[in-house]
Parts: sequence; C-alpha cells; structure tokens
Amino acid sequence: MKIAVLGTGNVGHTIGTKLIVLGHTVMMGSRSADNPKAKAFVAEHPNEASAGTFSDAARFGELIFNCTSGAGSLEALGLAGAHNLKGKTLIDLSNPLDFSKGNPPSLSIVNTNSLGEEIQKQFPETKVVKTLNTMWCGLMVNPGLIGGGDHQVFLCGNHEDAKEKTKVLLKAFGWKEKNILDLGDISAARGTEMYLPLWLRIWGATKNGSFNLKLVS
Amino acid sequence: MKIAVLGTGNVGHTIGTKLIVLGHTVMMGSRSADNPKAKAFVAEHPNEASAGTFSDAARFGELIFNCTSGAGSLEALGLAGAHNLKGKTLIDLSNPLDFSKGNPPSLSIVNTNSLGEEIQKQFPETKVVKTLNTMWCGLMVNPGLIGGGDHQVFLCGNHEDAKEKTKVLLKAFGWKEKNILDLGDISAARGTEMYLPLWLRIWGATKNGSFNLKLVS
Repeated sequence: MKIAVLGTGNVGHTIGTKLIVLGHTVMMGSRSADNPKAKAFVAEHPNEASAGTFSDAARFGELIFNCTSGAGSLEALGLAGAHNLKGKTLIDLSNPLDFSKGNPPSLSIVNTNSLGEEIQKQFPETKVVKTLNTMWCGLMVNPGLIGGGDHQVFLCGNHEDAKEKTKVLLKAFGWKEKNILDLGDISAARGTEMYLPLWLRIWGATKNGSFNLKLVS
Repeated sequence: MKIAVLGTGNVGHTIGTKLIVLGHTVMMGSRSADNPKAKAFVAEHPNEASAGTFSDAARFGELIFNCTSGAGSLEALGLAGAHNLKGKTLIDLSNPLDFSKGNPPSLSIVNTNSLGEEIQKQFPETKVVKTLNTMWCGLMVNPGLIGGGDHQVFLCGNHEDAKEKTKVLLKAFGWKEKNILDLGDISAARGTEMYLPLWLRIWGATKNGSFNLKLVS
C-alpha cells in the first residue's frame, strides 16, 4: 500500500521503517520538501521511500499516519490539506503535550475534548483512528520486545472500516488480536491522551520507557 | 490503630470493613452523625466501629482515609477541620469526577492541578498520600481477586513517613512490595486522577470493572 507518514521524528522514522519492512511504499511528509531527516530516511530505503511536503505525502498516501508532535499536528494536517485527506484513514499517534510551561508537560487539549476528536472535527471527511499513543515508539512496531507481547494497545474512532484497516496493520506490527482493545468512538481519545501524565510519571519512577500496560482481570 | 474513614459509600464501607478485619478500630465520618449507612456499618461491627460527623471521625483517627466522592472531598475535609487533621496522614482515594454535564464525566480539577495536590495545599499541616484511586474498591483490599495479585497500585505524596505508613497498610491489604509503585511527590496525583477517563472507557469496552493494570517491561 502507498502510505504517508507525517512527521520525521523518532515516531515517524520507526513507523516508516516498519511499514517498508512489511512491503509498503512510504512517503515521509514534513514542513519542507528538503527536510534532512526525511532525506536520510529516503537514503536508507531508496527504492521504497520518498519524501515531500505534508501536502505531497497526504496526496500520495492511500492511508496516512500522523506521527507529528501533538503541538503541531493540527497545523501539519492543515498543510497536508483536507482535500488530500478526504475519504482516507488517518491513524493518529499524537499526544497534545504542551512543554511550554516546563516539565512535566500539561495537555493543550484535555478533559472535555482531545486532539483525536479535534482532528476528526476539523477533518470531517477523513476517518480518524487514534491508536498507539500510549507507549514508546519502539514497542509500537515490536510489542514482543517486552512480556512476550502480551500487553495492550488501544484504538478508537468513529469509522468501523478505518478501525478494521488499522487492526490489520497493528497485527502486522506484531499485536495479537486479544491485546487490541477497541474503546469505541473517537471521544475515547480523551482517555488514552489523558493517560500520558501517568505514563510520564511511571517512566520517571522506573527510569525505563520501554514499558506498557497489561490489563489483568 | 484508631482510623477515621470519611465517606459512607462503597469505598468507605469496603475500606472500613477491611481495617476492622485487620484489627483496627474505625470511626466512619459523614456529614451528619446519624447517617443510615454509617449506622448500618456500626451495627455490623458493634465492638470495633463507631460513627460520627466528619469532625468527630477526624478527631478520633490517628490516620484518616478520604473515601468521599471527589466532588465533595474538599468540603468534607473542611468540615473535618484542619485542626483535627493536623500532623496526621491522610490517605486520599478520591477522584474529581464531575458528572454534572452527564456521562462520561469530566474531571473538575485537572491537567495543571489535581485533587490530591489541592487537598495538600488546603491542608498544609496534613500529610496527604494519594493511592488506590485507580481501581474498583473490591480490588483495593483484595488484589488477589485477579491475576494472582500481580498488578500495580500507585502512590504519591510529599511526606516519606506518611508514604511508609501507607505502604504498611497496602501490604496488609494484600499488595506485594513489587506491585507498589511510588510515583514521587503529590503532583503525580495528576497522573493517577487523569487515568480515570481511560479506566472508565476500558470498563465500558470490557463490561467488567474488576480489572487493573500490570506494568510490563
């Protein structure tokens, strides 16, 4: 599949690399077409990867991963263009962390709204699925790194077909069916985004970011 | 030990009962001295339990459990009286859930503050420890109900001696040392309180409130 990865940071690089390993072709999108990190990514995968603006990438992708930092996601998606995102599944991995007042960060959208919902509202003809935003990116594409892969990934969104497409990709990333928990509509993004402050505190207490949650019942 | 349990709901009843099983004497505090639920609790344990106002109970207790609903906690603690709480450990189990705008609830204190922190600010001579607020009350006092008890309880607070006292009680409740994670100072209550929206969504998706999180790393 032709997939756009918006964002050139660790998350975008990790997702893009895994997608190529899985046989997809990837265009990495960023603010400028000559982003050095995007160019380096293309140099690593000259046959399967390309780079362009957010708009170029969104036009290219049959499916889009939002791997931009939460503080810039709405602007990045605006640059990508609603017409380029129309009708497509947008898998949103971002968290609205606001570091402007120092550490620990607060959330810029919170409580009665979430970044996932806000993206869905601003791009009503796009099918937003929130997932994978509750863990370090190394685990997103390799859950077997810890605990035999037996821990949880959440997803939510308003469009069942988009959630099914996302589940197929999650399984290709290594997630088992029993560990993928559908939390319902996109408003559940409040829950997964508001978990971030606890995630950061656990990381701080354990000095280890390579952890995840397993539901015990 | 003489322990005050503020609040007569399921959480207060569960905590109070467990404390009595463990050999403590308990005064259950509520808005009025003749609260029917508190009287019923005393009738169940005529030798070990008593009931009174929030103020009576706080005066009685060497240690205080706040089991009031989050929406009323600050008022209840005000009625308990700062002088009755002074120098004591206050174990805070509440969550600032606001159901006034319907379901799902939002949080009335959130993001750059938390109910745990607000209690500590309003009662600076009391030693507030936030714990156990991330699960159904049945698990609080019986973690072995699920997964062999191998799942997490978090605690945080500014006072090491109060956290140590709390850990002793948590272990008496059945929690293993390895499953008790100290998240640091009381500002970590933002993390555990902001987890509630995810908790509620998981409950909604699984139709089972008897679950908890295990950290996998």
